[in-house]
Amino acid sequence: MRIYTFDTTLRDGTQGEAISFTVDDKLVIAQKLDELGIDYLEGGWPGSNRRDKEFFARARDLSLKHARLTAFGSTRFARNPVDRDPNVRALVEAGTPVIAVFGKTWDLHTSRALGISEEENLKLISETVRFLKDHGKEVIFDAEHFFDGYFSNQSFALRALEAARDAGADLLCLCDTNGGALTSKLAEAVAEVRRRFDLPLGIHAHNDSDLAVANTLAAVEQGVTHVQGTINGYGERCGNANLCSIIPNLELKMGHTTIGPEKLLGLASVARFVAELANLPLRSDQPYVGRSAFAHKGGVHVSAVLKEAATYEHVPPAVVGNRQRVLLSDLSGRGNILYKLKQHGIADRLSEDARRELLERIKHLEFSGYELEAAEGTFELLVREALRPGVHFFEVVGFEVSTKVDGNAPPRSVASVTLETPHGVHSATAQGHGPVHALDLCLRRCLSPLYPSITEVRLTDYKVRVLDSKMGSAAKVRVLIEWSDHRKSWATVGVSDNVVEASWLAMVDALRLELMRLTEQDQSVEKAVEDYCWGV
Amino acid sequence: MRIYTFDTTLRDGTQGEAISFTVDDKLVIAQKLDELGIDYLEGGWPGSNRRDKEFFARARDLSLKHARLTAFGSTRFARNPVDRDPNVRALVEAGTPVIAVFGKTWDLHTSRALGISEEENLKLISETVRFLKDHGKEVIFDAEHFFDGYFSNQSFALRALEAARDAGADLLCLCDTNGGALTSKLAEAVAEVRRRFDLPLGIHAHNDSDLAVANTLAAVEQGVTHVQGTINGYGERCGNANLCSIIPNLELKMGHTTIGPEKLLGLASVARFVAELANLPLRSDQPYVGRSAFAHKGGVHVSAVLKEAATYEHVPPAVVGNRQRVLLSDLSGRGNILYKLKQHGIADRLSEDARRELLERIKHLEFSGYELEAAEGTFELLVREALRPGVHFFEVVGFEVSTKVDGNAPPRSVASVTLETPHGVHSATAQGHGPVHALDLCLRRCLSPLYPSITEVRLTDYKVRVLDSKMGSAAKVRVLIEWSDHRKSWATVGVSDNVVEASWLAMVDALRLELMRLTEQDQSVEKAVEDYCWGV
Repeated sequence: MRIYTFDTTLRDGTQGEAISFTVDDKLVIAQKLDELGIDYLEGGWPGSNRRDKEFFARARDLSLKHARLTAFGSTRFARNPVDRDPNVRALVEAGTPVIAVFGKTWDLHTSRALGISEEENLKLISETVRFLKDHGKEVIFDAEHFFDGYFSNQSFALRALEAARDAGADLLCLCDTNGGALTSKLAEAVAEVRRRFDLPLGIHAHNDSDLAVANTLAAVEQGVTHVQGTINGYGERCGNANLCSIIPNLELKMGHTTIGPEKLLGLASVARFVAELANLPLRSDQPYVGRSAFAHKGGVHVSAVLKEAATYEHVPPAVVGNRQRVLLSDLSGRGNILYKLKQHGIADRLSEDARRELLERIKHLEFSGYELEAAEGTFELLVREALRPGVHFFEVVGFEVSTKVDGNAPPRSVASVTLETPHGVHSATAQGHGPVHALDLCLRRCLSPLYPSITEVRLTDYKVRVLDSKMGSAAKVRVLIEWSDHRKSWATVGVSDNVVEASWLAMVDALRLELMRLTEQDQSVEKAVEDYCWGV
Repeated sequence: MRIYTFDTTLRDGTQGEAISFTVDDKLVIAQKLDELGIDYLEGGWPGSNRRDKEFFARARDLSLKHARLTAFGSTRFARNPVDRDPNVRALVEAGTPVIAVFGKTWDLHTSRALGISEEENLKLISETVRFLKDHGKEVIFDAEHFFDGYFSNQSFALRALEAARDAGADLLCLCDTNGGALTSKLAEAVAEVRRRFDLPLGIHAHNDSDLAVANTLAAVEQGVTHVQGTINGYGERCGNANLCSIIPNLELKMGHTTIGPEKLLGLASVARFVAELANLPLRSDQPYVGRSAFAHKGGVHVSAVLKEAATYEHVPPAVVGNRQRVLLSDLSGRGNILYKLKQHGIADRLSEDARRELLERIKHLEFSGYELEAAEGTFELLVREALRPGVHFFEVVGFEVSTKVDGNAPPRSVASVTLETPHGVHSATAQGHGPVHALDLCLRRCLSPLYPSITEVRLTDYKVRVLDSKMGSAAKVRVLIEWSDHRKSWATVGVSDNVVEASWLAMVDALRLELMRLTEQDQSVEKAVEDYCWGV
């Protein structure tokens, strides 16, 4: 059966404690989720804050191929006529084809939180739904706290659904807002609603009892055809139902159609992308999409899985864009690297000396605090330098960067850089938004006359972490920079007790690597690196 | 009904990719889980590695009050007579009152992984179980891959259970080893086993489909009385069923007895303790025990939860040793902030105007990319500035910092800072390990003659994140700095497209805050802030 996916990462997801998306983040995520084949994208609550209002204004320029953009908001306030309720007006003004409007279905809420009668509550629901329908919207009625309401006062909860239906709602979405419902009881409640209501039903589950995915699947078994959730289960408190688990369960195990098998191949990549923008590590043990989801450590498991993957894998990892990993717990650090180099035939291309020197360099870097697993660019450069001894493209003669603030004027950062190349000495000076920007501009000015294509390399992320916090502001820092040249992306790392120098080292590595790649294709190196560092 | 808890954190939990416990860690955890009231503690696989063997040797000195220590291992190898199988002998020698022995119940495994006939497999099971019973052990038969086996070849799977029962096993534990089973199908299989077998049943679920907790509860609904899992769901691949979710669900929602309501009060503390020893952050969104599990961010939620906690909390957080938290952000409306300020009697001390201005400042900062939730120092400063309008201690006249590298010489960072204080203009110049260090030294040199105790404030962590990665090296960055004065620690935040300025803003906030604190004790402010940034 066709089950419709409704993503609320951009609305309920942002209620997660650690989640904070800029409007730009939200627009990029919307685009990505559209590509994944999500049916509905809930973008925010335009009546509640500026950021969401701005999102909808700018979302008009998005060209979504498939997803229907949805604005979220509450039924009108008790004291406002519906056409003069600012929140309802903001919903209409958001300009989306779909509106998800939530109303109360739990008597505790109307009596305690709102302090209104049931009669009034039913009026809020029906007038708001009707008003939105009159404006030509597809209206999803989110029955907030439906299950708590149903178990507390069944007829009250059902009358609220009737009010929405009678006012013309297109779909009734049953919400376990507090995430407290047990699967078997929730399934009974859904079955009863299914018996009484003839329009499409949805489910919106939270994970407070660690049951959000199970509850969503149980609702589908009872006839629900619309599932709400978020990427990586982000959301308030313990999060929302995780679409990254729900979608493959529906597709691969229950015979339903959601985004389809082809788009499913992109699932792990979307999970990582959203985590990246949320600035959170993707949980490595996350079902289906985590880095450890198909990683085998125990000896018994490893030997069996190498004979027959199905012995310890519930689905083939590739169908969700993930992959099998066999952890080499006896081969760690350098051993592991050597193993990978051998596996890709690179070790044989190195002389005994070059191999030893490479391992020494790696050992030294790891000891200084480099994490090569997270910086495939720096690792790739090391391997390529071992394969092409003496090729550096440029040496750093010196650099200087200063940042100055006078009173309330914006800060000025100015840098100058001198490099020596086989074609002579090149210097450049530039002013930038900050010291990293200024140095980056200088580097490119020195190098682009010789190597024009390095202008395509772009910094996409920049992270700094203190390594030895006992040293206070004199501590050693690790700078991790991510780069992209539109073809692929990679990270480089620099470590120093000077944050500017650490950034500089990572920048120099990135540009040297790009020059290495431009002057010599070496796919076995790229594969060995990908294999070793996958998942960063 | 009494449901028995079986913890395998020390065995299956250690198969998690990131998990590595020393023997000492394992002993301390065993003690802690005994105090929590866990019924069975699976300590390891004595036949598989030295560490686990050592654990059992040293565990004899533990004085467990309640838990029964359990050793884990496989049925005998096909080529060994049972009394000369090293693995089975190691099980007996572990000296535990209970043995969990696993055997194959999936025909794929006997044919592909072991390469033996069904007849032989049944002999492995019955001989091993009987041998262990003859040694006076309580024997739990772990039916490995039971559900995959049952769905693939039902009679094969059931005959394996019969062999274990007939050999005297005390309990049959049905394992979803690959974590691939759907809840409704698993429940049907359990029901069928329940109909056919008269001895106690157990369930051992993995989380590969994000259903481990639901599957465990579904099995209990079908008559299972023994639940296996791990603290925080640690375990191979996507982890095991999480006892921190299962126990409160059984106790609080299903009317069963496990560790009892009194021990349940220690659940969140045990979860943190085990995470601490695993050297992993406790997932903040973890159900029941996570730091965010009862944290409210959305404005509607906050205002309702303040009237009646049950409106957005599925259980009272205190029953599992957790607590309610109200967060600040631009999604909050006024409820969150007013809550914090009112709770500590601060709101009454602000004029209507000051209150509105504070709210506006917070909204503006959040919109610019500040994350006040993570920066309690900056938040505390905002509140204190609202309470003491015009008190700044110093104004920044200007600063400059430059970093220079010549050839292979180490980098030099030099800064100069000019501040205006009520006691005149102060300038300082300093050289540091990096620009942040140099600026920090200058700030202290300017201020310490006036306020000697600020020398006690020390930077303990420094993090930088890019906010809008599309801007490349010109992107806006957020700098988060953690500080400590040996009495307490706090964080401040700065946002700018210049990383030096962002760092500077966070440094200035930290020192201004310290000066505020030194010149005016205001415990109600500190408490309001502490409350909201409850640290784990």
